[in-house]
Amino acid sequence: MAPVVILNAPQLAENIGSVARVMANFGLADLRLVNPRDGWPQERAWALASGAEWPLNAAQVFDDVESAIADLQVVFATTARPRELQLPVLTPRAAAADLYAASARGERTGLLFGGERAGLETADIALCQAVVTIPIDPRFRSLNLGQAVAISAYEWRTTLQDAPPPVFRELSPPADGAAMMGLFEHFERELDAAGFFHPPDKRPSMVQNLRSALAKARMSEQEVRTFRGVVTALSKGRGRVLAKLAKQKAEEGEAG
Amino acid sequence: MAPVVILNAPQLAENIGSVARVMANFGLADLRLVNPRDGWPQERAWALASGAEWPLNAAQVFDDVESAIADLQVVFATTARPRELQLPVLTPRAAAADLYAASARGERTGLLFGGERAGLETADIALCQAVVTIPIDPRFRSLNLGQAVAISAYEWRTTLQDAPPPVFRELSPPADGAAMMGLFEHFERELDAAGFFHPPDKRPSMVQNLRSALAKARMSEQEVRTFRGVVTALSKGRGRVLAKLAKQKAEEGEAG
Repeated sequence: MAPVVILNAPQLAENIGSVARVMANFGLADLRLVNPRDGWPQERAWALASGAEWPLNAAQVFDDVESAIADLQVVFATTARPRELQLPVLTPRAAAADLYAASARGERTGLLFGGERAGLETADIALCQAVVTIPIDPRFRSLNLGQAVAISAYEWRTTLQDAPPPVFRELSPPADGAAMMGLFEHFERELDAAGFFHPPDKRPSMVQNLRSALAKARMSEQEVRTFRGVVTALSKGRGRVLAKLAKQKAEEGEAG
Repeated sequence: MAPVVILNAPQLAENIGSVARVMANFGLADLRLVNPRDGWPQERAWALASGAEWPLNAAQVFDDVESAIADLQVVFATTARPRELQLPVLTPRAAAADLYAASARGERTGLLFGGERAGLETADIALCQAVVTIPIDPRFRSLNLGQAVAISAYEWRTTLQDAPPPVFRELSPPADGAAMMGLFEHFERELDAAGFFHPPDKRPSMVQNLRSALAKARMSEQEVRTFRGVVTALSKGRGRVLAKLAKQKAEEGEAG
């Protein structure tokens, strides 16, 4: 089960909407609001959610953090300010790993975020099992609420999937060594015919440099086929040009 | 050097502002805009940046992606849609590691993002060395532009610092085994005096359970001192109650 997201005293409906949107992006759905400043529901939240309506439709409202976390077994509080508490301090990555492990044990977990202006009160953080702090640049610490949730939700998501989605893997498979060697030798054969390798004693190192320039492109099978077509086109083209020049010469000879 | 952030055809000034804000959060500063829909500069961008003005003040505007990346040596394109291109597809984490390594070699790097509606055109992605895709929930793929930049900027930041900031480490040091044993024995001594361990043959397992309940709290030295105070207060309190009861009994005896 993905962690519950608890927003304590959120101020702007727009931020609640963008939290819902980014929760949906990363597979979270359970949103709880503690004392939203302007009441609940608020239309502007739905407007900002860009269609991610289910976390908003199902959002529960509570009077205090204590009630909002009453059924949860592990709750981490996100804050940018250190407190007088002796709680463990985790990065979002470490927190996600911990919550994932807790969730895998069947525990109900949550992530607590403070309001835009005031953040969390220490008394509420003291109800949590750990503090999460985002490794932000100390020169500019004002992180938007939606962005703070985004980072945590993204880190949660990477515990489930930290690879490009399968749809990105439908590429032509990478060429193997034999396919690359076929390209190299085709290429070098035509370059030999064109007199490219000069002086001849430099040929081995020139060949190596050409091969490594192509090797590091990590070509697909399709790309190897394309490049063999390119080599053929260029060399045949050259052949045609040579034939044309030879013909012109012959005609000039006749005319002369 | 942190990567340059290039926004291709961004539509909303608000999003440009929130991109600037989150760039500042994670230590990025060089922002480039390719054909911003509503022109540049736009006041609303500054309003949304919450004081992160320097990326906006220094933002450069270009007519096309080609010009915007002309001085860069490695550029990765963020997209949620697979293309007919054979580029490597990286997660934001792998991309950050790659850009960090490139940057450490002195290369100038960039991250290219498409506009809110249309994303990137394949022709622009083809100018890049790799594609970055965020491991999003396929059921809700509409990621806000500011959030997409946030994830990438955060991942860049974690290559530099993936630990809580030093200011969070000024806690009381964790208690060592001797301190914990002092607490355990103090606690058990008073519980013995109070007749808590009953029946006596259960004492060893009861002691073990109490010890492990405290051990996993990973107490600090200060917390151990506090809990020893707690044990003393409770046992002295009990002593006072017992003394009071004894006194009452004696008085009743006198009265009787």
